[in-house]
Amino acid sequence: MSAETKVKDLALEIPAEPFKPAGQYVNATRSGNLLFVAGQVPAKPDGSIVRGKLGADMDVNTGYETARLAALNALATVRAELGTLDRVSRVLRVYGVVNSTPDFMLHTRVIDGASELLVEVFGEAGKHARLAVGVASLPAGMALEFEMTVEVGD
Amino acid sequence: MSAETKVKDLALEIPAEPFKPAGQYVNATRSGNLLFVAGQVPAKPDGSIVRGKLGADMDVNTGYETARLAALNALATVRAELGTLDRVSRVLRVYGVVNSTPDFMLHTRVIDGASELLVEVFGEAGKHARLAVGVASLPAGMALEFEMTVEVGD
Amino acid sequence: MSAETKVKDLALEIPAEPFKPAGQYVNATRSGNLLFVAGQVPAKPDGSIVRGKLGADMDVNTGYETARLAALNALATVRAELGTLDRVSRVLRVYGVVNSTPDFMLHTRVIDGASELLVEVFGEAGKHARLAVGVASLPAGMALEFEMTVEVGD
Repeated sequence: MSAETKVKDLALEIPAEPFKPAGQYVNATRSGNLLFVAGQVPAKPDGSIVRGKLGADMDVNTGYETARLAALNALATVRAELGTLDRVSRVLRVYGVVNSTPDFMLHTRVIDGASELLVEVFGEAGKHARLAVGVASLPAGMALEFEMTVEVGD
Repeated sequence: MSAETKVKDLALEIPAEPFKPAGQYVNATRSGNLLFVAGQVPAKPDGSIVRGKLGADMDVNTGYETARLAALNALATVRAELGTLDRVSRVLRVYGVVNSTPDFMLHTRVIDGASELLVEVFGEAGKHARLAVGVASLPAGMALEFEMTVEVGD
Repeated sequence: MSAETKVKDLALEIPAEPFKPAGQYVNATRSGNLLFVAGQVPAKPDGSIVRGKLGADMDVNTGYETARLAALNALATVRAELGTLDRVSRVLRVYGVVNSTPDFMLHTRVIDGASELLVEVFGEAGKHARLAVGVASLPAGMALEFEMTVEVGD
């Protein structure tokens, strides 16, 4: 089943437009069949950003849902770049950064919110290498961000 | 206008030699037309490294200038690898890490110091995908570091 | 001398199997001749993960040995993907993340534990671009993690 069909079947709410970069950068660049997706923010359908710190004022389940939001925004970016998600031949790399306290330990569960979405949509092609870490702070107090590298099919 | 002409016109002070890696690594590696630039440090023309922590003992404007210094050092690395900046066909990815307190929120403004320099020098080709985060600590107490992936033209 | 011969000569203990990813991801993905290795954990031969925080309850020498453990696990992953380490034509990029206190400064020395191992095994081909940072926290309280991108020879 194609990724776009999957998105329809699961009724996933991918934003019509990717979130606009706040600084002097762009949402994605491409070299050959590699698509480098910039740090994607967890924006709600109304455009507001989810703020918080894991281990302090945000629990793990909310973190999981927040990572899913960031992944949906990443899909919006991929669609804007490639026209359709069906041109993704593999999700190569995901880097999840979690705004967290020094004693937080459940990054895996949080970033799985993004990773599981990618596998739901792309199936085997959605299985990616990943690094998940807890950072001291993020722009605007965002709860998390994630970066992605994708392979584009011919 | 070529990148090297831009550098002359803007009278940018790119170090004659890239900053020497302090550990067991090199400043850049290449595979095909991808150039992987290692974490670049904010070194002043006299060779001293800029130390500090955003949100504590360094303000945002100084952070911006510090990111610009790191970008200048990255350009020195690119020149040393490729002979000339004019062989860069695209800046693909920038990862800016800011040494910060847990409540710092203005990473975007800080790392723009590096990103704006790249766009000044390379124009459209300087527009990159970016991730900016706040880390707990950096080697030698540096205020920031950034990593870059560049596409080399044929 | 081939990398596999080096491993034998140095009697390096590369785990028979790579450490299983704890979350919804895989240990490595490949696109063309690029192998993206996921965040590798510092696991001991008995399978236990090394936990700790540099600058608090782990000293730099232990950190160095811990980084070496993570690199050995990365070699296990590369072997599992490619069949043999001898197919690595270049280690392109290493990203070392150290679980650390806000005032820790010796990341370079810690991550050198991984970098020096890569140079021991691969020689010139093991020299990589690197970024080393100190993060607020890591999954399960691990002391460090590292990510790697490798070029595969034809």
